[in-house]
Amino acid sequence: MAKVVVGMLGLGTVGTGVVKLLSNHKSLSLKRVAVKDLSKAREVDPRCQVTTNPEEVVNDPEIEVLIEVMGGEQPALDLITKAIESRKHVVTANKEVLAKHGPDLFKLAREKGVAIFFEASVAGGVPLISTIQKGLGANQLESILGILNGTTNFILSQMEEKGESFDAALAMAQKLGFAEADPTNDVEGFDVAYKVSILAALAFGSFVKPQEIFRRGITHIKPVDLEHAKEFGYRIKLIGRADRTDSNVQARVEPCFVPMSHPLASVSGGNNGIVVNGHAVGELMMVGPGAGQLPTASAIMGDVINLAAALRLQDFASYFHTEVGDTWQAVSSSDSWKTPYYLRLEVEDHPGVIGKIGSIFGANQISIQSIIQRGVEDQGASVVILTHPVETGRVNKAIEQMKSEEFLKDQGTCIAIFNGKNGAGK
Amino acid sequence: MAKVVVGMLGLGTVGTGVVKLLSNHKSLSLKRVAVKDLSKAREVDPRCQVTTNPEEVVNDPEIEVLIEVMGGEQPALDLITKAIESRKHVVTANKEVLAKHGPDLFKLAREKGVAIFFEASVAGGVPLISTIQKGLGANQLESILGILNGTTNFILSQMEEKGESFDAALAMAQKLGFAEADPTNDVEGFDVAYKVSILAALAFGSFVKPQEIFRRGITHIKPVDLEHAKEFGYRIKLIGRADRTDSNVQARVEPCFVPMSHPLASVSGGNNGIVVNGHAVGELMMVGPGAGQLPTASAIMGDVINLAAALRLQDFASYFHTEVGDTWQAVSSSDSWKTPYYLRLEVEDHPGVIGKIGSIFGANQISIQSIIQRGVEDQGASVVILTHPVETGRVNKAIEQMKSEEFLKDQGTCIAIFNGKNGAGK
Repeated sequence: MAKVVVGMLGLGTVGTGVVKLLSNHKSLSLKRVAVKDLSKAREVDPRCQVTTNPEEVVNDPEIEVLIEVMGGEQPALDLITKAIESRKHVVTANKEVLAKHGPDLFKLAREKGVAIFFEASVAGGVPLISTIQKGLGANQLESILGILNGTTNFILSQMEEKGESFDAALAMAQKLGFAEADPTNDVEGFDVAYKVSILAALAFGSFVKPQEIFRRGITHIKPVDLEHAKEFGYRIKLIGRADRTDSNVQARVEPCFVPMSHPLASVSGGNNGIVVNGHAVGELMMVGPGAGQLPTASAIMGDVINLAAALRLQDFASYFHTEVGDTWQAVSSSDSWKTPYYLRLEVEDHPGVIGKIGSIFGANQISIQSIIQRGVEDQGASVVILTHPVETGRVNKAIEQMKSEEFLKDQGTCIAIFNGKNGAGK
Repeated sequence: MAKVVVGMLGLGTVGTGVVKLLSNHKSLSLKRVAVKDLSKAREVDPRCQVTTNPEEVVNDPEIEVLIEVMGGEQPALDLITKAIESRKHVVTANKEVLAKHGPDLFKLAREKGVAIFFEASVAGGVPLISTIQKGLGANQLESILGILNGTTNFILSQMEEKGESFDAALAMAQKLGFAEADPTNDVEGFDVAYKVSILAALAFGSFVKPQEIFRRGITHIKPVDLEHAKEFGYRIKLIGRADRTDSNVQARVEPCFVPMSHPLASVSGGNNGIVVNGHAVGELMMVGPGAGQLPTASAIMGDVINLAAALRLQDFASYFHTEVGDTWQAVSSSDSWKTPYYLRLEVEDHPGVIGKIGSIFGANQISIQSIIQRGVEDQGASVVILTHPVETGRVNKAIEQMKSEEFLKDQGTCIAIFNGKNGAGK
């Protein structure tokens, strides 16, 4: 059987890994790779035509499968679109392009009779997407959630283990190459939001718009919050999740208190951990490397091999097509999500403050599980509260009211206490 | 498109789960089910022809996919063989039939152009097999290992938590329906050995003969061993594993000391936990329900849905065929496997015994990491030894020598200390 001819956009860390793995597969032939800089020293020789003009790859009629590992929204989006228009199958790791333009791309792919594979776009080396699509086909999924960003997981681990500030832990992550010079995408939760959009498409049939996802990053977390977490038997993790609700889907990114006894609490460093809840299988967990050259290349090459194996079959595209819709999915209001909360309030240390907090909580029907006040000499007091499960909207309203009473010295730190269950009240 | 017509052998716990899930799928039509006893009260109505003659199912030319959930070697093997001969695709949960006759069955299936799907045969609801076949296609696998039997995991958890004897914990497992009246298959490790044979086929291309797998059960473990484990920072788990060696494969079933810090140590009760090591992905772990009606039915129905989706494609069988070979694979000698060991030796309490043990260990080049001797008044002494990594053959030889010296009062209890790494010296 003739070899499957492959082209690639990008030859950075992941692209280099792909070249390494490709050499083991004689049924595949890499014809062209587009790079930014021809003069850059390379770890491997791709043994094919290397160009700085990506159009040469996208326009080559002999190339059947395009691997896109350049990243970023543009020009990746335009190049992927052109490739699909010229009936190339696409294997991509680009979560940003998929989350922002998934419906258009999948619609176009269906029209052109080609497939888009995207295993590497979520959870790096963990073959989460093929597991959901092929292994859990008999299940109505209730939720997918987990630790989906290695950079923030590394930073939180550093802060916890060494008592470092967020800024110091971030600087260490940047020094070690785990965080980018501009870390916004990771630490503000945008990266996880893209992944949640893709997971929602897998679990519930359609993408959700990334900007409609409830999103809190980790920049407001202080070492004292990690100490409090430990004291109460928790660890702080940045959790992304998509949950089925009665009408549509709840989609959230936020740091959570995860109980030490939950397996997600022991997912450390650069690993990702994902929990899938299906109506038949119950709870399934996967843990593995969320990034890295060979793990990510493993996910991409898994897709390429599956594509190549199927490529000579008739009508195979329809077999790979059915799971992801080409419309956006509405997101339920984040205000109605119910979970217990941890609140740390830095307040003026004068009489009546605890009473005022209590009445504001009561007025908003927030039930308190534990409350601890610690005075710091001449510096006001720190009040730490653990609530019973309560709607996000009520907590936000209570914080707004406390701010207007002027005893609150900062914004208030509010961290969800992780609940494996769906908080949409289903 | 015409419905895919399905037949089923068996309507016990798992078969009932399959009927429940089938009703959600309009592209599938269940035509005939074979049962043992027509008069038995059923949780669900299969809404099809029910017969006590399985030949009626196997010989029905309209049935395209046969689901086999009757279990046991015979008559399941003959019925599956007949179904393949009449060009039916087979979805089976039968680990015993696959491990003992896999090569013949896959050879026949290839000749007849049909597929055998077997997701439910290992790790219940965990979609381990599709993950390995589809998700990790780019990897050369180094090892697959884990907790693959819920019954023994439950018994060991009971013994650890309640300090119960093996017999008491087994009785409790039988009372709760977690263990069969004759528990040999589970507690002696046969069930795990069948699964290891299947995992070896997935990971390394061919089945290994179950009787060639190194196998130790859990009947010799006493509460004191679980206490020692805890004292040293371990938990005892029954681990099955298949590891690549230079020439072929090492295959083992044995209780192991698993470090508390390893995620496998926290896989409790009826859950299964599997660690896959691939050359590109690194270490990937999956945890989920190893048994149960709906989880196992989830695995079977996942297979049926994938089969049905592909069934109208031309030449699809070759797409699903390539991974499992139809010859047996040779197994490396278990004597050469290197791992640290825990040994508990009940000895006569008289002078010189420790010295004798030390010289026997020295003569066999076994290096001791820790040794503890506890005298029990008038009852001899208990010597607990943790070794450095050493070949299984040397440890067995040392125990034989101690027996011939006649200071050893029993067989000696020998439990491997878990090592995620391949012990074949690769």
